[in-house]
Amino acid sequence: VPEKLSLEALNKAGADDFAAALANIVEHSPWVAGAAARARPFANLVALRDAIAAAIRDAPPAQRLALIRAHPDLANRLQRAAGLTAESLDEQDGAGLDRLSDAEFALFEQANDAYKAKFGFPFIVCVRRHGKDSILGQFSLRLQNAPAQEEAAAVDEIVRIASLRLAQRVTGDGSLPVHGHLSTHVLDNHLGRPAVGLAFELIELSRHGESRTLVKATTNRDGRTPGALIEGRPVPIGTYELRFHTHAYFAGRAVPLADPPFYDVITIRFSVADPEGRYHVPLLLTPWSYTTYRGS
Amino acid sequence: VPEKLSLEALNKAGADDFAAALANIVEHSPWVAGAAARARPFANLVALRDAIAAAIRDAPPAQRLALIRAHPDLANRLQRAAGLTAESLDEQDGAGLDRLSDAEFALFEQANDAYKAKFGFPFIVCVRRHGKDSILGQFSLRLQNAPAQEEAAAVDEIVRIASLRLAQRVTGDGSLPVHGHLSTHVLDNHLGRPAVGLAFELIELSRHGESRTLVKATTNRDGRTPGALIEGRPVPIGTYELRFHTHAYFAGRAVPLADPPFYDVITIRFSVADPEGRYHVPLLLTPWSYTTYRGS
Amino acid sequence: VPEKLSLEALNKAGADDFAAALANIVEHSPWVAGAAARARPFANLVALRDAIAAAIRDAPPAQRLALIRAHPDLANRLQRAAGLTAESLDEQDGAGLDRLSDAEFALFEQANDAYKAKFGFPFIVCVRRHGKDSILGQFSLRLQNAPAQEEAAAVDEIVRIASLRLAQRVTGDGSLPVHGHLSTHVLDNHLGRPAVGLAFELIELSRHGESRTLVKATTNRDGRTPGALIEGRPVPIGTYELRFHTHAYFAGRAVPLADPPFYDVITIRFSVADPEGRYHVPLLLTPWSYTTYRGS
Amino acid sequence: VPEKLSLEALNKAGADDFAAALANIVEHSPWVAGAAARARPFANLVALRDAIAAAIRDAPPAQRLALIRAHPDLANRLQRAAGLTAESLDEQDGAGLDRLSDAEFALFEQANDAYKAKFGFPFIVCVRRHGKDSILGQFSLRLQNAPAQEEAAAVDEIVRIASLRLAQRVTGDGSLPVHGHLSTHVLDNHLGRPAVGLAFELIELSRHGESRTLVKATTNRDGRTPGALIEGRPVPIGTYELRFHTHAYFAGRAVPLADPPFYDVITIRFSVADPEGRYHVPLLLTPWSYTTYRGS
Repeated sequence: VPEKLSLEALNKAGADDFAAALANIVEHSPWVAGAAARARPFANLVALRDAIAAAIRDAPPAQRLALIRAHPDLANRLQRAAGLTAESLDEQDGAGLDRLSDAEFALFEQANDAYKAKFGFPFIVCVRRHGKDSILGQFSLRLQNAPAQEEAAAVDEIVRIASLRLAQRVTGDGSLPVHGHLSTHVLDNHLGRPAVGLAFELIELSRHGESRTLVKATTNRDGRTPGALIEGRPVPIGTYELRFHTHAYFAGRAVPLADPPFYDVITIRFSVADPEGRYHVPLLLTPWSYTTYRGS
Repeated sequence: VPEKLSLEALNKAGADDFAAALANIVEHSPWVAGAAARARPFANLVALRDAIAAAIRDAPPAQRLALIRAHPDLANRLQRAAGLTAESLDEQDGAGLDRLSDAEFALFEQANDAYKAKFGFPFIVCVRRHGKDSILGQFSLRLQNAPAQEEAAAVDEIVRIASLRLAQRVTGDGSLPVHGHLSTHVLDNHLGRPAVGLAFELIELSRHGESRTLVKATTNRDGRTPGALIEGRPVPIGTYELRFHTHAYFAGRAVPLADPPFYDVITIRFSVADPEGRYHVPLLLTPWSYTTYRGS
Repeated sequence: VPEKLSLEALNKAGADDFAAALANIVEHSPWVAGAAARARPFANLVALRDAIAAAIRDAPPAQRLALIRAHPDLANRLQRAAGLTAESLDEQDGAGLDRLSDAEFALFEQANDAYKAKFGFPFIVCVRRHGKDSILGQFSLRLQNAPAQEEAAAVDEIVRIASLRLAQRVTGDGSLPVHGHLSTHVLDNHLGRPAVGLAFELIELSRHGESRTLVKATTNRDGRTPGALIEGRPVPIGTYELRFHTHAYFAGRAVPLADPPFYDVITIRFSVADPEGRYHVPLLLTPWSYTTYRGS
Repeated sequence: VPEKLSLEALNKAGADDFAAALANIVEHSPWVAGAAARARPFANLVALRDAIAAAIRDAPPAQRLALIRAHPDLANRLQRAAGLTAESLDEQDGAGLDRLSDAEFALFEQANDAYKAKFGFPFIVCVRRHGKDSILGQFSLRLQNAPAQEEAAAVDEIVRIASLRLAQRVTGDGSLPVHGHLSTHVLDNHLGRPAVGLAFELIELSRHGESRTLVKATTNRDGRTPGALIEGRPVPIGTYELRFHTHAYFAGRAVPLADPPFYDVITIRFSVADPEGRYHVPLLLTPWSYTTYRGS
């Protein structure tokens, strides 16, 4: 893990040091940080991010295209073998692109090929904002774009990637609105108290491959988890399932239950559309009823 | 489908005709109906059923054991090939025993073998009251019985099978409490009306094999189905899932939804413990919340 | 209670007998039934009602105005003392107009005076479709009408009154859609069963006078009442409260409760806007939570 | 408002200064603080409170009885006119004892008289932990005590009063567990968001007198109020009503509503049994349904 940089120090650094420190914020393109350096000092992180975005958007077309072309393909095994930047590798792995099923791999290959055939450059998406299904969905959507429109879309994604890398690397005033929140809370309406000690999982569902268990946890004395289930990063667009092991929870209490119990595992399936949004998915529970809703 | 018999006609028939008419009520054992014939006339169906039960329980031990031994194994492919009574075949197929996965088939074979090794007679269970998982569970439970206890358990099951066959064949006063009920109802709390035209499925979940879709339906103008999802028979003990296609339902209405929508498919997983019970599983729905409970 | 008339008999009766039998269907105006008689035979009750409506709407303006003027004022103590038709008296009493508070009486007097000053004829409204507050609301709304518009509104109300009187007096094919439905149902989600033996009241709330308890009842073994709370008549437009004595209900059961209990009386306040509609107001209950909704 | 004292300063003060500073912690009885002073230094507030309790419980019986007798009657108009300590006045007024209806006043007078006739000393209760109805309930309960038992009960209440006065006056390590919490939260399940700008009231219900509106507020952008509805003090034992003006809330939004709307004001009536407890009373809302529960 590289150490954090302070915005204050970056504002005071020599132009070369500044560009070097932020070289990897945009893939293989230190010139972006170089150009942004001229807009210093930055009042806050948002101003820094905006300067980077402006440096890209104001660059000569050929340079901007070269920047786009400097990005790796998604889920490309040859490129992985040859080596990606540490940042790209981490981001792609986080989205599960290192563990694709054969069916998924084939879908990504087709999509990459179709995309490059149409646009002549690799498909860029901020993968930390998406699950696997959602990335495939983005391919389909963006393949419908006209070339100029799609070049702009690629730059938008480069800025999103850069924003997340900045939020990870640089400390300073203001916060970049790049993180989302996913949490749960279980109330036991049978007892009138938070449900304590209820085991549950958060699963990322996948249409073409294996679903992934992201979190295995047990509710604490407030019916929650100590932190959120997902925080400090975007919540990937996708479909999730919370599986609450309610039978095991009630079985330990003096509650008359049927055999088998009316509910053994309660599953709540929901989708995330806004990776920077706040998703709270509570469960109000008795042995014979439950309620869930989008909370806040 | 054999024609229905009236209790009135059975009460008036000659003893041989009575025994012949009810020969198949108890597997390969017309003597049971013969013995029951002596208790005529029967005021109602329950009295007829009780006479059949008494005939079995009062028979000499060797005869009762022969009756138990006259029953087929469950899910035995050789016996199926050699031929079962029409009633047994229909009952076993209804429970899905004709479509076992290899894993399930192996589990049934092991269970049958262990059971016969311990008790010396085939395992009898009223399969119409159970799903596949539940039958395997019954094997485990009953293998713990002492022999005399298990013989009584086998007779109880024979009486249950006979009761269902009677309810199917004979009309008359009183009704045998052998049928359960499973239904649903969807209320759209966004509109304050029953949810009309919402597609859903009822699925019987299986631990070791394939889950089976029992019902595919669409809610009518009252948010229900014209009849119950399961009625006129026991509701097999087991775990079920109702899958409501709520996204498709709301997509056709002027409701602002996220993309992807917060809920696409709402799944309610529940278990049936009492095959003769009344199970009503309603769904109260908005695009952002839902409630379910054991209704009535 | 006058005896019921059959539509079949009315179709066959002499014109004078027909008119006499239905004389009171429209207040003090037997000529309406006389005119409708010419359209016989009526296939069903709706056709009879339509003929009565047509007779009024097709009458010469002066005769129609005389018909409007033949109606009594609402809640007029002098007219009550002098005598109303049995039908009017029953209808006004049913709406509680015989038990007005002084404040309400003053409001009705003002409203009657303002109305007659503007239109020159008494205010007519089908009181069985309204509570006291709603009648006062109708005065305000209709005082804004132009005279011709208001005359049409008065005729609409006369037809509504006649429809209800027909539904009460005449039997025959088809049913007039003049009745509503109000019911409740209590599910005990703590036990997973209908709440049996729970005492509750239905109260008609009043803004200017006393609220009236319309029903005091106890839930039966299905968590319901044997019939609906209001049926076989319109459900008066107005605001109601259901008061469920949940503490007394749970106190008799082995449920740990706080002292005082979290809920002692649960009140659900709701309004009826459509007197011919179906209103089902269920309660899903635990000692620590409840849910209500417009059911079906 | 007297200034806050720090525990550190109290620990270091001269014995007389310590006793003077805490003279009013126990009504008219500076000797209590004097006795407690000998146990200094106190590690935290709980230790100080315990020393005060011990000083009272270890005092000679006659002195302890004098302490009890030094307390004023509740709701005694003559004594109020003659003057109470500032602390007593504030506490009694906070419980609404300065605004009793005639019926309530008569009930308090009877209760005071009966109590003094039996025990020979005034009734002491920590009124900040009770509503008016609950104080009357305490009279009834404690009148059943034997004298020695009741003297102990009176001392318990004196310690509760002292604890609250300490929590108000003295800052230092540890916190005395004398405060409760009452809050609400409104989720709009129609929109899938917190209900913003919904007006509501919190009302303390009274059986014999007038109910009091404790809070009038409007939900903020998180569907909550900036602070809790009651915090920094005990939540008085009693019955409350939250009244949510949901019609006005939905009327401003593009939501199709009936006229009158199905719900105009939603009332949630609940009771507090544990003044030091955490009470969260959320509302999940659509125009056609709502859910409430004891949250956390």
